[in-house]
Amino acid sequence: MTEIRVGILGLGTIGLGVARILLEQQDLMSKRLGKKVRLVAAADRVLDRDFGLDLSTVRLCDDAKAVVTADDIDLVVELIGGYEPARSFVMEAMRHGKHVVTANKALIAKHGEELFPFAAEHGVSIGFEAAVGGGIPCLKALREGAAANAIESVYGILNGTCNFILTKMENEGASYADVLKEAQALGYAEADPTFDVEGIDTAHKLSILASMAYGSTIQFDQVFTEGISKIGAADIEAVHELGYRIKLLGIAKPHGKNGKVERVEMRVHPTLVPLTEQIAQVSDSYNAVMISGDFIEHSVLIGRGAGERPTASAVVADIMDIARVFPHGVEFLAPPMGYQADVRKALPLMPMEEVESEYYLRLTVKDMPGVIASVATILAEHQISLEAMQQKERNAAENVAVVMLTHLTTEGNLQAAIRRIEALSTIAGEVLILRKEPFDD
Amino acid sequence: MTEIRVGILGLGTIGLGVARILLEQQDLMSKRLGKKVRLVAAADRVLDRDFGLDLSTVRLCDDAKAVVTADDIDLVVELIGGYEPARSFVMEAMRHGKHVVTANKALIAKHGEELFPFAAEHGVSIGFEAAVGGGIPCLKALREGAAANAIESVYGILNGTCNFILTKMENEGASYADVLKEAQALGYAEADPTFDVEGIDTAHKLSILASMAYGSTIQFDQVFTEGISKIGAADIEAVHELGYRIKLLGIAKPHGKNGKVERVEMRVHPTLVPLTEQIAQVSDSYNAVMISGDFIEHSVLIGRGAGERPTASAVVADIMDIARVFPHGVEFLAPPMGYQADVRKALPLMPMEEVESEYYLRLTVKDMPGVIASVATILAEHQISLEAMQQKERNAAENVAVVMLTHLTTEGNLQAAIRRIEALSTIAGEVLILRKEPFDD
Repeated sequence: MTEIRVGILGLGTIGLGVARILLEQQDLMSKRLGKKVRLVAAADRVLDRDFGLDLSTVRLCDDAKAVVTADDIDLVVELIGGYEPARSFVMEAMRHGKHVVTANKALIAKHGEELFPFAAEHGVSIGFEAAVGGGIPCLKALREGAAANAIESVYGILNGTCNFILTKMENEGASYADVLKEAQALGYAEADPTFDVEGIDTAHKLSILASMAYGSTIQFDQVFTEGISKIGAADIEAVHELGYRIKLLGIAKPHGKNGKVERVEMRVHPTLVPLTEQIAQVSDSYNAVMISGDFIEHSVLIGRGAGERPTASAVVADIMDIARVFPHGVEFLAPPMGYQADVRKALPLMPMEEVESEYYLRLTVKDMPGVIASVATILAEHQISLEAMQQKERNAAENVAVVMLTHLTTEGNLQAAIRRIEALSTIAGEVLILRKEPFDD
Repeated sequence: MTEIRVGILGLGTIGLGVARILLEQQDLMSKRLGKKVRLVAAADRVLDRDFGLDLSTVRLCDDAKAVVTADDIDLVVELIGGYEPARSFVMEAMRHGKHVVTANKALIAKHGEELFPFAAEHGVSIGFEAAVGGGIPCLKALREGAAANAIESVYGILNGTCNFILTKMENEGASYADVLKEAQALGYAEADPTFDVEGIDTAHKLSILASMAYGSTIQFDQVFTEGISKIGAADIEAVHELGYRIKLLGIAKPHGKNGKVERVEMRVHPTLVPLTEQIAQVSDSYNAVMISGDFIEHSVLIGRGAGERPTASAVVADIMDIARVFPHGVEFLAPPMGYQADVRKALPLMPMEEVESEYYLRLTVKDMPGVIASVATILAEHQISLEAMQQKERNAAENVAVVMLTHLTTEGNLQAAIRRIEALSTIAGEVLILRKEPFDD
């Protein structure tokens, strides 16, 4: 039976999950694959510890370099995370003719455009299903399942930590700060939660999805990104009364004429989702990806977006895809980003000012007669019409919160109006702006 | 650019959808595939009609035989439907070295075990993603995305017609008969709706999913199958009050020891699903497949289960998968049923009497004191305990409906108790039995 020999870089949670599958699920995998996937070696800085797993058949080393250059390894699984030294090890592995599978969204989002041609040059494949949506096979669904479709939009709940925090804030009426502390205590959020809660992790994943959907190169640096840290328990309650739930979404849409994608809209921000939408029901640390295409219509994939076992499952699915064509040509696999390399190009992004949205606004109003009229007048002067307005309870400083829902307008227009509103002497502090998607089904 | 030449059998709704994609989406498909998929010929009995599509570049013929034997065709798309002559044409196409893609679940469920080895013998592939879940790439997700998992259960809402009827009955409080008539008028249900409403179509699809999940041969004839025609508006309301929604589910679970699947449980019936489950929110003609595996945990895929465009999208996804390895070996593709041919075998089914479930019972009680006590006594004698009991309104014949929810018991046990209950002189007519799944997340 043909054998593909695997080396793992990084025996953290996911690395041990992958090792567990390769060791414990070998018989099942062979029955499906007709080939054997053998775990040969693993590298980690700390080897003197209890792995909770019998690794006696695996060559352990504290030097990743020894794995990426080893003669008896055909495929390297990179689970170090972050940009460097992950990038260098991956390139070194490919230089030595090894296929690569990674769960590293930061690496792909930032260095993918360097890695893909490098892989092609060395005749190897690079798999990264685990980088987006954890255990949900969303890249495969988009790249292969929806391959006959012009993609009309991609919406994703892509960060389990944020979804956990938002769910808990809603269920318990608790503040962002309190829930974040709890999430950190439970290990659901990092000590420095910036990457997750400020939307950067979601932007990494969205940039990969958008590139795959529209044939653009990955443009992570240009994604408009807003996190969830400014959302209050009162906002969650207010939008719920209006029939919505707040989700941190990654959103990608194409713009152009005659079916040709000329510009791509990409943004990450807390979004009001109608309670009737499937993705509004996706709670806790679950992820979801909604793909709309001109033929499939709407398709929603929901599952565990993180965690040892689901992520490891996605890593091994990639290993098995590569094993199917091993040791033959990687040209039999779908191209990593769903399009042939020579047609991919950097498509201009739609500037955020031009993006159309509906808006939820929370204003802190000093209790003076006429202030609502002033605000409504400014909005009207910018051709922004209101769908709903509600005065909320007075706070300790005798200020009153007022929430508003607008109809569709452009971001530029809205921001211009907000600048004028914030300049009013009757408005205290900043206006909180949340966007609302006009879901069309 | 390498070209794969396609012929279509049957220009009905789906056939025209496939033709539309191949003609209109050619440029996009080439950019993704790096190969050209060319629609060469199509066969249909009636050609003298407006197809709503410019087929001037396609060779039209009224003889399917001319397509399956043509020298200039590499892949045949079978969209005739039903068992014969679909089976004969598919085999003839394979005999002539042509790959086959079909949306025909009946064909695969009934004749798959004849077709798969025949395809292998002739070095061709057979794709049938469109046969299950329409536009949802659920077979690919199960076969490739979850390939590293021992599958713990598959639950599917697999028939759009039934889901449409159940949704409408709930939303409008309407009777089954009225909604069925409406669905027929709208073209959502056939003049003879038996295949859909009695669960046969769902059983076709479930038998394919179960076989793929557990490595068993397809055993469609042995699926326990109950339809939705006995469900009343009052049942839908009663279960809703209890926190559930009725969905026609296909359910497949493995049974065995030490990770070895020894028997397979397969059943299709109306099922009480907790309102909090994702699949309870899947309404109208949408389909959903929930796959649970030992590593992915739970994954839910939702989308359009039928219709021209989504089904055609799935057909073309299969064409593109085959085109990727064309004209090279089909051994680079995942095996059609997810397992190597030589390890697949007919696994015994778990007899329905042994299947464990919770139950919803609707009894029509002649209004006599003591009857509830008699019923409860019989249930208790069969070690069946009650979770809830509710007396409903009196009907015209002065009978009273009583609904009950039981705790977990076996089907055999429940049926024995029901036989005794139905024999009571105080019970009118049959007891309606609906099953309730103990969803475990």
